[in-house]
Amino acid sequence: MVELIKKKRDGHILTSDDIQSIISGYISGVIPDYQIAAWLMAVYFQGMNDDETAALTDAMMRSGDMIDLSDIPGIKVDKHSTGGVGDKTTLILAPLVAAAGVPVAKMSGRGLGHTGGTLDKFESIPGFQVDMTADAFIDKVKSHGIAICSQNTKLVPADKKLYALRDVTGTVDNISLIASSVMSKKLACGADAIVIDLKVGDGAFIKNIIDAEKLAHIMISTAQKMNRKLIAVITGMEEPLGLAVGNALEVKEAIDTLKGKGPEDLTNLCLELGSHMLTLAGRTQSHEEGIDLLKSLIENGQAYEKFIELCASQGGDIEVAKNMDLLPKASLTFEYKSKKEGYISHLSAMDIGLASVRLGAGRETKESPIDHSAGIVLTKKVGAWIQEGDTLAILHANESSFFAKAESYMDLAYTFSKTKPIKEPLIFKTIQ
Amino acid sequence: MVELIKKKRDGHILTSDDIQSIISGYISGVIPDYQIAAWLMAVYFQGMNDDETAALTDAMMRSGDMIDLSDIPGIKVDKHSTGGVGDKTTLILAPLVAAAGVPVAKMSGRGLGHTGGTLDKFESIPGFQVDMTADAFIDKVKSHGIAICSQNTKLVPADKKLYALRDVTGTVDNISLIASSVMSKKLACGADAIVIDLKVGDGAFIKNIIDAEKLAHIMISTAQKMNRKLIAVITGMEEPLGLAVGNALEVKEAIDTLKGKGPEDLTNLCLELGSHMLTLAGRTQSHEEGIDLLKSLIENGQAYEKFIELCASQGGDIEVAKNMDLLPKASLTFEYKSKKEGYISHLSAMDIGLASVRLGAGRETKESPIDHSAGIVLTKKVGAWIQEGDTLAILHANESSFFAKAESYMDLAYTFSKTKPIKEPLIFKTIQ
Repeated sequence: MVELIKKKRDGHILTSDDIQSIISGYISGVIPDYQIAAWLMAVYFQGMNDDETAALTDAMMRSGDMIDLSDIPGIKVDKHSTGGVGDKTTLILAPLVAAAGVPVAKMSGRGLGHTGGTLDKFESIPGFQVDMTADAFIDKVKSHGIAICSQNTKLVPADKKLYALRDVTGTVDNISLIASSVMSKKLACGADAIVIDLKVGDGAFIKNIIDAEKLAHIMISTAQKMNRKLIAVITGMEEPLGLAVGNALEVKEAIDTLKGKGPEDLTNLCLELGSHMLTLAGRTQSHEEGIDLLKSLIENGQAYEKFIELCASQGGDIEVAKNMDLLPKASLTFEYKSKKEGYISHLSAMDIGLASVRLGAGRETKESPIDHSAGIVLTKKVGAWIQEGDTLAILHANESSFFAKAESYMDLAYTFSKTKPIKEPLIFKTIQ
Repeated sequence: MVELIKKKRDGHILTSDDIQSIISGYISGVIPDYQIAAWLMAVYFQGMNDDETAALTDAMMRSGDMIDLSDIPGIKVDKHSTGGVGDKTTLILAPLVAAAGVPVAKMSGRGLGHTGGTLDKFESIPGFQVDMTADAFIDKVKSHGIAICSQNTKLVPADKKLYALRDVTGTVDNISLIASSVMSKKLACGADAIVIDLKVGDGAFIKNIIDAEKLAHIMISTAQKMNRKLIAVITGMEEPLGLAVGNALEVKEAIDTLKGKGPEDLTNLCLELGSHMLTLAGRTQSHEEGIDLLKSLIENGQAYEKFIELCASQGGDIEVAKNMDLLPKASLTFEYKSKKEGYISHLSAMDIGLASVRLGAGRETKESPIDHSAGIVLTKKVGAWIQEGDTLAILHANESSFFAKAESYMDLAYTFSKTKPIKEPLIFKTIQ
């Protein structure tokens, strides 16, 4: 291993066998954390080329169990978001794409820090079960065209171990390590094709478009080398997506969107990502055709009906989905009012995310409990003209002391200007 | 710690407090190996400036016990060699400088791999004791002007722990890490001033003069920042120093040198380093004056007498020092003969060192036993004209099977040419 560390340190290219032996040695415990840590830092400085990144993705993918979706007919398309605030797209996209007849076999994760998680959001619906065997998961996809489940803990153990180490050794921010982490998980979940929503900005872990483009290109190259298709959509995450942040609040907004009554930014992003999923699945021939088809499924109610079917299939209370007043509701609300006047020129997704964690909606550590009813509903976003005292957001919590903690983050979140700001586009670029 | 890793990773300068907290956190076990490994690799790529290197040296020096030599009058000068093959200079320099009236309080180490260690060499003399308390050590220096002892295991624990980690994480080769490792140990041993013999070449861990000069400059800067004086002498280690390699064989050569009958290269190096020690100690005013004084101490027998006094003081059998036939002697010898004709154009110190390990003279691991009588005496060095069948060296061992193992390294050690090679100088440069 010392020789492999030095090989990378000195700028040489590692072979597939080198990378396979590093990953299998790490998983088996033969190679200790400290050698992997030094190797990761050498990778941080020297980078990895496309072949090395693909080899790492492959070695990680094979490090544990792999889901076999081949029993499900058709091309299985997965979607992955690199994480943001108010990102409830999976709740909308999964039933929307399934309603178009494309099978959706979705494994998701939980929220941590300022970003939420899809499983936590679905679990706001009383009874909704996300834990199931691989067989039950595949059976549900076969019979309903859709299933959402928690990630099998035996999938990609190399990523769990590596990510935990990267997190504490300053080696998270390397595009090859990021790409292999994301893609090994998606591919181990059985995806034939992947749409990646690369979030860029204040609330995302990628802070600029140049880095996002580099990441997109290495992901596409990795997918090609592994005989998979991938489309990367680079989207903005300066301000939160939609208006709702917090689990039950986001479920309500997702259902509204499936009924055609959602916020414009969220709706457009779902149509954009969904159409790429249909194209990759071979369901539609052009991006426009996909958008039109998805719009029609919203208008004719089939997207919403698929959501209800999903709920029923996974033990969720469909009365709640039909009457959103039955969703978990916080006992207290607080109108957050503006202390200033002007146009909102910046609205920090990160600060809003942190405020919602303080209200109980998120986890500070993996073990933290979560309050499904807590969160924030924004009433104004970037570009709006605000008078002092105008309500900017409604905060929801079950303990009054939480409001003060959240409020300091809310104060940080807003920047005002005298002139109307130019709003950045939500979708920057699509790379395929 | 993650923030400190990132700070170095991103090319920022660490403060003294940052470095102190890294070292004390590592020693106390609060910071795990894997974070230090990542930090070391970041240091490898980003380097450390003079202030950081001095801060690291200081933090390491203070990580354990420190020897207080202030009871011994005068400026205490230490000498350190970065390690080579046949390097028995300490055996000569210590009594030589002590004979000049400069106190020598020398802590030394043992051999590992292809390089030998001063303690092992002294222990070739039956009865010679190197383990003693700090008080006994200081008392001996006060009464005899000289003492040699094994390094207190509680000195600089940070270096032991860091070096072991660097060795297995590809982070040995960084001049700031090398400088702080060497200097923290010397300073913890109580030195007021240091002469560093920076060996460069085949048998040394520094392979070229440019790296040696960089190391010399950072060591001098570190010494200045810590209010110490340091002279660095860059010397060649392409071929072994002197003719003898192996513990008892080197003791014999050292005694010969103290009597004025040693090989020219070894004698000259000892005069050179010794004179710098006298200058640093304030004993002489110029380099020439020092050389003359040391030469006279060899000629009038006082240097040899000081060696006998040292032996007696540390329990060594002075009859052995007086009659070197009584030194441990191998039961078998083997004349290594040339298979080729020509001038010796290169004689690899590394290969000779490895051959002597195979004969039993060195350690392959820290736990290996050592045969004091084994080793090699060269009869010819670089520049000599050799006929096929001429004896190049005499190998000494106690098991006949060892000769075959050593011979393959001997074969590799010699390179011949038709034209007389230009011999490189032994002393390249002195930096102060």
